[in-house]
Amino acid sequence: MLKPSPVTPDKVKRHNLARVLRYLHEDGELSRSDLVFLTGLNRSTIGALVSDLAEAGLVEEVSGVGGSRGRPSLVVRTNSSRNFVLAFDLGVDRIVAAAVGLGGEVLATIHRPRKDGPYPVKEAIAAILESTDELFTSLPTGATWAGVGIAIPGVVETELGFIRKAPNLGWIDVPFGQMITESFRKQIGVCPKVVLGNDANFGAVAEYVRGAATAASSVVYLTGDVGVGGGVVLGGEVLTGSSGFAGELGHLVVNPAGQPCNCGSRGCWETEVGRDAILSAAGFLPGPDSFPDFLAASIADPAAMKLALAGVGGWVGVGLVNLMNSIDPHYIVLGGHLAEIYPYINEVVIKRIDQSRPNAHTRARISLPSLSLDSPLAGAAEAAFAPLLSDPLHEMDQAFVLI
Amino acid sequence: MLKPSPVTPDKVKRHNLARVLRYLHEDGELSRSDLVFLTGLNRSTIGALVSDLAEAGLVEEVSGVGGSRGRPSLVVRTNSSRNFVLAFDLGVDRIVAAAVGLGGEVLATIHRPRKDGPYPVKEAIAAILESTDELFTSLPTGATWAGVGIAIPGVVETELGFIRKAPNLGWIDVPFGQMITESFRKQIGVCPKVVLGNDANFGAVAEYVRGAATAASSVVYLTGDVGVGGGVVLGGEVLTGSSGFAGELGHLVVNPAGQPCNCGSRGCWETEVGRDAILSAAGFLPGPDSFPDFLAASIADPAAMKLALAGVGGWVGVGLVNLMNSIDPHYIVLGGHLAEIYPYINEVVIKRIDQSRPNAHTRARISLPSLSLDSPLAGAAEAAFAPLLSDPLHEMDQAFVLI
Repeated sequence: MLKPSPVTPDKVKRHNLARVLRYLHEDGELSRSDLVFLTGLNRSTIGALVSDLAEAGLVEEVSGVGGSRGRPSLVVRTNSSRNFVLAFDLGVDRIVAAAVGLGGEVLATIHRPRKDGPYPVKEAIAAILESTDELFTSLPTGATWAGVGIAIPGVVETELGFIRKAPNLGWIDVPFGQMITESFRKQIGVCPKVVLGNDANFGAVAEYVRGAATAASSVVYLTGDVGVGGGVVLGGEVLTGSSGFAGELGHLVVNPAGQPCNCGSRGCWETEVGRDAILSAAGFLPGPDSFPDFLAASIADPAAMKLALAGVGGWVGVGLVNLMNSIDPHYIVLGGHLAEIYPYINEVVIKRIDQSRPNAHTRARISLPSLSLDSPLAGAAEAAFAPLLSDPLHEMDQAFVLI
Repeated sequence: MLKPSPVTPDKVKRHNLARVLRYLHEDGELSRSDLVFLTGLNRSTIGALVSDLAEAGLVEEVSGVGGSRGRPSLVVRTNSSRNFVLAFDLGVDRIVAAAVGLGGEVLATIHRPRKDGPYPVKEAIAAILESTDELFTSLPTGATWAGVGIAIPGVVETELGFIRKAPNLGWIDVPFGQMITESFRKQIGVCPKVVLGNDANFGAVAEYVRGAATAASSVVYLTGDVGVGGGVVLGGEVLTGSSGFAGELGHLVVNPAGQPCNCGSRGCWETEVGRDAILSAAGFLPGPDSFPDFLAASIADPAAMKLALAGVGGWVGVGLVNLMNSIDPHYIVLGGHLAEIYPYINEVVIKRIDQSRPNAHTRARISLPSLSLDSPLAGAAEAAFAPLLSDPLHEMDQAFVLI
């Protein structure tokens, strides 16, 4: 039996620093009075905490707009450009990289297309290192590098930084967290904490923290890439499941009479609403340029595309019904290609949901992503910030400064 | 902004009394040393807490078996027969009632069959009151009545004691908690707290607290009655969902080409694996005695029944695959008629799961209920005990004693 170590004044202070910094990171600039209100701490404690965070370079106090009694009021805000993380999203046909500042400001992004198909691990690491060099050149000297987050289209053991499988990259059992840490150390001498996660889980977190589902306690995020992935956040926590295989929503069986899936089953959601199914329904052959071509054709003749995609819309609807009947989330956010086709299928989808859930108040709200970054990339940045947000001063002591 | 009220010594004591009583309620008899180990509190604190609980009549200390150094050791245990709750399960074709002692001992049960179909609310209340009278006669004078729990086959707002819909009883928007409380007061003068809940949710809680899934943090419990209901416990909490409609697993669409369901959809899990579907697959006409007849026939010729139910088994498998691909629970417990038919379908079910989840470690463990009471009834008892287990001495002050 282990007892928790006693609560010391130092622990309380660290806890309160973390709370203040998280409010500023998630809510944007706040006055000291706002912070008193939000934390329930008294004014002098807030003053001391803000001073400590400012001294560490994490926040700054500036004149805000619209102070009371005609005076400009001071607001506290994160020192966005001086504290950043790097976020990466390893997609099937591209790597997207971003430098994101504390507070969520996107400081720089890089978009590198690549050919569909298996992706040698070494190439992925090289692409991450090159992107890092490129991102660094656009960041100011003296900025503090607080972490790295990487979104993976597969099953990831986040605590170990271990990728169990990422079929669309062709990866099985890759200790990618360790490999990328060693590569950073070899190449540039240092590496802050690297956090890996499933792309849809990261997407769900991003939508929960600063996206469409900010006001909700439960959200399902669906990625649509080649396949369909899912991330589930319940009460602020990612649902990982007993074996790490929760949210494998692309393999919900929606059409038992449907096409074989490469998972070994048949009629999985991603065989019915994945990219190839959409192209085929719309009369396009699979190919690297087919999806952009299909989107262009949809814009040119939306009515025809609605007709062509009615079947796909029905399968999207069945899957959404099943999520409502099992998890009953507040929001379901459709990401990736599902967001792109939603304008052409929304009527069919809503009709299918009506059939199973006639009462509107029992339905999840269907949303499209509303972030300036792709949700998985934004979630990778949130994951990278998590250690700093949990113990700001300790992590700043360990962070690296650009010279 | 509201601050929590300060932590006082009285609060700490009440919290610790609750912890000790819950350990005894869930784990059975324990020595004072066990309690020191489990709670992390010191020996003299445990002594004082046990004395307080004993003085309130909630626990007793008795000679246990196999003390160290040849001496009989004292063990603390709940005073089971002197502290009880009443639990009711309103089924489609029966009401089952039980008096359950603190610690989970079943003190008395009553089983009242009723005709299938709509159930007038007044008749249900009358049946509950009559069952109560009958149960009381088998309980000792001086026993303390601590609560009432009622399992409902429908959607329940537990906090309000309000039944939104229970289609198989024919109920919509019934303030049943209030009605039953008033009826108890009218009939016998008093009524302790009444807790209503969905039967499958209660079943999931019972399996989590003292059933098949005790060692797990996540469990899905399936009721099979006329239809199929589901309850989901994640990290010890029932998943209610954003609108109270989580765990509506009977309406997962498993066979989009299947039969129409009375929910308005088609091929819902309960249309494919509910009682009528099973009877039809086995060549029996629906009727009040058909299911017992079918079970007798299955025992007489299991091989024939396995053949007849292969299709049903496949649909059970598709639903289970979908639960694993969304929620990924540690355990899935098959209750009601699903438990009764499982011996005839298990091979088909496992084969279907193999197809989607070839790696054994990614599969939920499929279990049958292992409690002496039906899981929903046992869960109703747990729900009825919840207030007493949260604040033992306060609730004992409010409880009623049989005279």
